[in-house]
Amino acid sequence: MDKEKFDAFNNMNPVDIAEILDETDDEQAVRAFRLLSNDLSADVFSYISPEKQKLLVEELTATEITDIMEELSADDMADFIEDVPDDVAQRVLDSISMEKGTTVDRLLDYPEDSAGSVMTTEIVELTADMTVKDALNTIRTSGVDKETIYTCYVVDAERRLMGAVTADTLVQADLHEKINNLTETNIISAHTTDDREEVALQFSKYDLIAMPVINRGGQLAGIVTVDDILRVIVEEDTEDFEIMGGMRPSDEPYLKTGVFQHVKNRIVWLTLMMLTAIITATIISTFEELLYVIPTLYAFIPMLMGAGGNAGAQSATVVIRGMALGDIAIKDVAKVVWRETRIALVCCLALGLVNFFRVFFTHGRDYTLALVITLSLCATLLVAKTIGCMLPLFAKKIGVDPAVMSAPLITTIVDCTALIFYFSIARLVLGL
Amino acid sequence: MDKEKFDAFNNMNPVDIAEILDETDDEQAVRAFRLLSNDLSADVFSYISPEKQKLLVEELTATEITDIMEELSADDMADFIEDVPDDVAQRVLDSISMEKGTTVDRLLDYPEDSAGSVMTTEIVELTADMTVKDALNTIRTSGVDKETIYTCYVVDAERRLMGAVTADTLVQADLHEKINNLTETNIISAHTTDDREEVALQFSKYDLIAMPVINRGGQLAGIVTVDDILRVIVEEDTEDFEIMGGMRPSDEPYLKTGVFQHVKNRIVWLTLMMLTAIITATIISTFEELLYVIPTLYAFIPMLMGAGGNAGAQSATVVIRGMALGDIAIKDVAKVVWRETRIALVCCLALGLVNFFRVFFTHGRDYTLALVITLSLCATLLVAKTIGCMLPLFAKKIGVDPAVMSAPLITTIVDCTALIFYFSIARLVLGL
Repeated sequence: MDKEKFDAFNNMNPVDIAEILDETDDEQAVRAFRLLSNDLSADVFSYISPEKQKLLVEELTATEITDIMEELSADDMADFIEDVPDDVAQRVLDSISMEKGTTVDRLLDYPEDSAGSVMTTEIVELTADMTVKDALNTIRTSGVDKETIYTCYVVDAERRLMGAVTADTLVQADLHEKINNLTETNIISAHTTDDREEVALQFSKYDLIAMPVINRGGQLAGIVTVDDILRVIVEEDTEDFEIMGGMRPSDEPYLKTGVFQHVKNRIVWLTLMMLTAIITATIISTFEELLYVIPTLYAFIPMLMGAGGNAGAQSATVVIRGMALGDIAIKDVAKVVWRETRIALVCCLALGLVNFFRVFFTHGRDYTLALVITLSLCATLLVAKTIGCMLPLFAKKIGVDPAVMSAPLITTIVDCTALIFYFSIARLVLGL
Repeated sequence: MDKEKFDAFNNMNPVDIAEILDETDDEQAVRAFRLLSNDLSADVFSYISPEKQKLLVEELTATEITDIMEELSADDMADFIEDVPDDVAQRVLDSISMEKGTTVDRLLDYPEDSAGSVMTTEIVELTADMTVKDALNTIRTSGVDKETIYTCYVVDAERRLMGAVTADTLVQADLHEKINNLTETNIISAHTTDDREEVALQFSKYDLIAMPVINRGGQLAGIVTVDDILRVIVEEDTEDFEIMGGMRPSDEPYLKTGVFQHVKNRIVWLTLMMLTAIITATIISTFEELLYVIPTLYAFIPMLMGAGGNAGAQSATVVIRGMALGDIAIKDVAKVVWRETRIALVCCLALGLVNFFRVFFTHGRDYTLALVITLSLCATLLVAKTIGCMLPLFAKKIGVDPAVMSAPLITTIVDCTALIFYFSIARLVLGL
């Protein structure tokens, strides 16, 4: 790499540099990484893929690793250590100070998807008896990362959270003012073990840019910042999309996932759904004699199952999303079912009418057939909408991800009930 | 409200106060709102529902309205004016200064879902020749809202963006240092007309907390902050969930939406899907003679259609989400189709084997029947996966929301092709 290219490289955004290195072959990538200026290399390292991180730890000297790790924040280091093999992790842990190692260990101990696992521990702590001048000095000498100094937290002698002071308050205040008088005490905080999705909901509800996190002992353990929450929301939504699309969720971008990994993510649901279709096949076989008499009945099976599937998917989707947004809670079950029932009744009226006349005029003005199909359609819609809204709530209640209870599963259940209703109604009305 | 309650009320978070007022009856709500301290009322107003905002504008005196509106930021005011009837909007616009009115007008002119429509115009602008002391004074006297001062932007005499200085750089620098020397010039910016989803992608890619927005003349028009982006992401994802669930997207929370509004959001797709089922019914009727000979063929229709629907939904979901995350672009179409084809082939192999033996052993060891079903299943999976991944890309290409091309639509297309394959293969193999 010549001088000009090198300068251009060092002036790029670390995220872009990491992206380029990820796509460069190993030897070149290590060489290019070594050319990065000191203040860039830790930043670039934190954005690089786990495979390339592993490679760098193996190829760089112990001193080089120590230099990077000292710059890397404890939470970035914990993220990286989770993703690499044990020997690489050990090599890194050996290179850092004992204090930092303890912090990283503690971060790794927090349950996955907890507030503790997304928080950063590099924060500025002030005490109530400081003056503004002391506080500004503390910030100046702390050297902590940019986004985390916007709000400074005030703690007591036992490091219990007293309140918060924003950077603009400090800038605007008299230098001799006591921090005590500037502290906002009415602040929203989380516990280290809180679910990160719940924390994310608080951020969007209250327009927060940072939230302090308290440990079991009531002490300030760290803060979660809004940019981390952004990533949490994107990840959680992607997970829901994938589960609702009938797949095992995956963190990897589509084009970077191998064919067999894609198959692994999808095959379980596909097989399951294929095998549950044995039930619908059995139901159809059971009523076979009915179909010998009126073969036309067959032609409407796809329509009924389709309408049921769609109606159920709609209800499941609004309820799953409503729960994810905090609009719907388990205790709202009665309200939700009652609303969905009324929605289903109105849909029945509208779709039923359209369907009745459609069948009537396209099937030799046979009003008993039109009636059978329409009644079956209405029964299917009612079942689909009530099951569709209840299953996600039930899943949440028993501690399963509500997204699991979406289209594929509900379709199967609705398919079966739709068929049973259809054939029973046909038998009854047609007197077979 | 007695004194104690009043104090408790005034000490609450404005978001919570707004929530309470939304659920209070009108007369009480206006009375309670009047009791709020001056610095709280604008904040609470910005979080209250449009209906209650309208009520307040109608019930409060002109002076009271002016007081609130002077405190309200221009972007919050634009949001509110978009949601209320014209006469209410006029009453508000009459109460504010001409300058603020012009800013609000300009914000309202930006296309919906553009960067301009989510940005805030209240920013601190510095010039390169200022000293740190001048800069801190400018911040101090600007009185702008908290989250927007973390990054200050440096502009030239024509208000063109030169770069940015962060608050912590200012705090840590010598008071006599020139801003010029502290300015980071390599910054990521957006244009007022950029799609807000694209801007959101940049925020999560580069871990940004604010991004400057440039107007057509190349001048700094405002900034987008990460808390606004958080809301954008939540809204866009919700929209995608609803569209993919076969519904018209809606901004309102589930329980606050009336039954008829819910029906309106859902009935179009339901009717459309019901009517397209005429096609599947026609296909089944066309091949009726086949089913007279081997009625067992009927029993597998739900399984084939189900497998096709699920497989197609999986492919559509990963592609739609991949595009939303910026992992997949239109130009990747060949790569995506090739990957999905290979995934489909592996799935065919696995599901085909399971299916073959399942049918063989449960249907009188009839290997021609098992073969017909298995071949049809494989053809369906292949079609489902390729159509499922291509349609969303095609939609994006012609400027339609890719989410529209999801489960319900793909299911219909896959259902039809699955049936045609099934019956054709049956005819061929069974020699009918």
